[in-house]
Amino acid sequence: MADETTKYLLDESRIPTHWVNLVADLPGDPLPPLSPATLQPAGPADLSAIFPEALILQEVSTEPEVEIPEPVREAYKIWRPTPLIRARRLERLLGTPAHIYYKYEGVSPAGSHKPNSAIPQAYENARAGVKKLVTETGAGQWGSSLSFACSLFGLECEVFMVGSSYDQKPYRRSMMQTWGGTVHRSPSNLTEAGRSQASHPTGSLGIAISEAVEVAASSEDANYALGSVLSHVCLHQTVIGQETIAQMEMAGEEPDVVIGCVGGGSNFAGLAFPWLRRKLRGDGKSGMRFVGAEPAACPTLTEGVYAYDFGDTVGLTPLMPMYTLGHDFVPPPVHAGGLRYHGDAPLLCATVKAGLVDAVAVPQNPTFEAALQFSRTEGIIPAPESAHAIRAAIDEALAAREAGEERVILFGLSGHGHFDLAAYDAYLAGTLEDPRFDAADAEAAIARLPSGTPAIA
Amino acid sequence: MADETTKYLLDESRIPTHWVNLVADLPGDPLPPLSPATLQPAGPADLSAIFPEALILQEVSTEPEVEIPEPVREAYKIWRPTPLIRARRLERLLGTPAHIYYKYEGVSPAGSHKPNSAIPQAYENARAGVKKLVTETGAGQWGSSLSFACSLFGLECEVFMVGSSYDQKPYRRSMMQTWGGTVHRSPSNLTEAGRSQASHPTGSLGIAISEAVEVAASSEDANYALGSVLSHVCLHQTVIGQETIAQMEMAGEEPDVVIGCVGGGSNFAGLAFPWLRRKLRGDGKSGMRFVGAEPAACPTLTEGVYAYDFGDTVGLTPLMPMYTLGHDFVPPPVHAGGLRYHGDAPLLCATVKAGLVDAVAVPQNPTFEAALQFSRTEGIIPAPESAHAIRAAIDEALAAREAGEERVILFGLSGHGHFDLAAYDAYLAGTLEDPRFDAADAEAAIARLPSGTPAIA
Repeated sequence: MADETTKYLLDESRIPTHWVNLVADLPGDPLPPLSPATLQPAGPADLSAIFPEALILQEVSTEPEVEIPEPVREAYKIWRPTPLIRARRLERLLGTPAHIYYKYEGVSPAGSHKPNSAIPQAYENARAGVKKLVTETGAGQWGSSLSFACSLFGLECEVFMVGSSYDQKPYRRSMMQTWGGTVHRSPSNLTEAGRSQASHPTGSLGIAISEAVEVAASSEDANYALGSVLSHVCLHQTVIGQETIAQMEMAGEEPDVVIGCVGGGSNFAGLAFPWLRRKLRGDGKSGMRFVGAEPAACPTLTEGVYAYDFGDTVGLTPLMPMYTLGHDFVPPPVHAGGLRYHGDAPLLCATVKAGLVDAVAVPQNPTFEAALQFSRTEGIIPAPESAHAIRAAIDEALAAREAGEERVILFGLSGHGHFDLAAYDAYLAGTLEDPRFDAADAEAAIARLPSGTPAIA
Repeated sequence: MADETTKYLLDESRIPTHWVNLVADLPGDPLPPLSPATLQPAGPADLSAIFPEALILQEVSTEPEVEIPEPVREAYKIWRPTPLIRARRLERLLGTPAHIYYKYEGVSPAGSHKPNSAIPQAYENARAGVKKLVTETGAGQWGSSLSFACSLFGLECEVFMVGSSYDQKPYRRSMMQTWGGTVHRSPSNLTEAGRSQASHPTGSLGIAISEAVEVAASSEDANYALGSVLSHVCLHQTVIGQETIAQMEMAGEEPDVVIGCVGGGSNFAGLAFPWLRRKLRGDGKSGMRFVGAEPAACPTLTEGVYAYDFGDTVGLTPLMPMYTLGHDFVPPPVHAGGLRYHGDAPLLCATVKAGLVDAVAVPQNPTFEAALQFSRTEGIIPAPESAHAIRAAIDEALAAREAGEERVILFGLSGHGHFDLAAYDAYLAGTLEDPRFDAADAEAAIARLPSGTPAIA
């Protein structure tokens, strides 16, 4: 047991030089987004009011790889490559023959994977002469990442933070301000969108997106930045999976299953897509499975319908082909604020629809039970979002014990929980709730999906 | 500028195999601690009520190196080796020809260098059959580190947390509880020591130490653990400096000045002592300087007297030869709770006394100004304690600019500030105070130093 390797590290020269664009390897053509005005396929022009051209080109690219600009790779060096860690202590606690590996993205300054996309978004906007980025944030991971990225590239940053998270995580707000960002509680009275949603005081990602898009679209020198869902965000995150492939090679193993939590899908895509591309190309284990873990209180992939829907609550964004609970469904205020989203990345949804990726929904209390087991063995206190992946990974490891199989499990630990300790307090005190998914509410929201869009199911 | 290296990483095989014991290389014999009962030199027996034999042997060892037990090295692998980072963005902001490097200890689960000693202390106590460790904590860095270490080795952990920090940093308490620790606000009414200090509601490290020692000394199966000051704690921290020597070699540079913040002294000792030993042995730059940065509100090294004094406020510990402001001096409640200590490690004080190490005292607001500059260039939000070292490093870099010299500056970034954001809030709002050092108060406390001890000044 002595001198077993725990961490697999890469030096900076191993930061990927390209992002992986899975769309090139998926069978068939991707379904186009639709203009909210015409319901016709949206083109780059529909996005140019709020995104710079370079990001629009990434969004619609069908090339298998996109080169990472050198200043972005330089900024990635602040924390990348991130470690791959073998969870030996957790394995021993579980008494499982499984080998559990996790890729830890919490070493970034903002504490999660989100800067992987915040950096290139800030860089391309700064290069395009934009002065300010406006965005939404759930738990605050994205908003703090964008504030951090804007501080590096000399941009202003304005953040609409989901009300329930704003109240639960005051230090995330302080963090954004420390990096120079401005933060509003959403729904706010600063926008039409916010005022129209005043009856949902806990807010939601969908509402906060509406507010940010409204501000960006009506401003000359401001753009919008989205932390997940869109294809260019998934693209940026693929540095995670690419590094992991190199690190699992160092470990001399290959995963049987790749697990990530899913909110808007970019974390999951970032870890899984490079592995999935390998599998689609016939490399590696042919039986490799992919599992997205979402909250039982907001079960988009497991309970949603596959249809065209808006990315935001009010209906300002293009319509995207995705699993959705309805754009005006407001999920209950679970502590995993980053997973409280009615839809999911179209690219991820396409892989789920094609049967390439499975989804599981896990309730809040079992998720925190897993988080505690992890904290007390591996040391790292995980973000509630990331703990969904830990729950699914532990369930896999227990199944492996049951089956007596030495399965190799790889999961993404997307961030730390330093700003989520109020949730741990509640769990330890036995007062943490398991908010129920209101299926009737979602059904009603789904019935309100925009009509006149092409059927895709 | 493209592809410049930012981080210098070591793999796990480079975790040091031995700790560095500077005492073997210092001229003359170390001054012994004194028994509080007899004022005669204290022996191992004076410590055995609260420490296991293995740690006592480390405390009094005069060997130049002490082997690190294999289970401790295994636990170190959870986060060690830590990165050495070249602060290129900060250098550019300052327009300095200096090269600034920092060793970042905030990647540990608890967020600071403290687990370097918490791990071996928990390990040796567990091996000795102890069931529980009792300790004090200032800002919470040590208490959370010991809670984490106890969770790895199956020990209970009880923490007396300095009142002002307990109020300022509620999530540090949650963190300790997440790892299974029990936390009391100090001064508490659970101990005689605490009840005797009820007139100092903000508490101090000295008071919290008295409480923890009292509980440990009166319990059969509990021991005490100290997070700084003692020689075995400084010893454990020398993994920092040893790794840094290897990493500066990778960078192809050697520091002109080594800077660390000083509270009890273990962080500074951990970084500086391996470098200082090299210098004492005639290796490397002969002009290498060493600078300890302490808060102007608690200026132990710059304003204290060199004398025998208690380590705690009530007078339960052996008397130690050190710079002190008087054991019952209660420093004002600066946000750098980890630096609010009346004394300093005897081993560090001996190097200051011998002229090997310089000290500077920096006020709170300029410290946070430096912290903001650092956050907005290097990305990492530093702990207020660590920001004292940043202030001193920036001052060095500005002096180098003034002198037109390409100085190489190495400083220790001992931890992140994720639990200190209320202090950043106050700084950003312009309401952060610069608490004054009450020299008359310290003078009075110094006048109350125990009489009958040998003069050492």
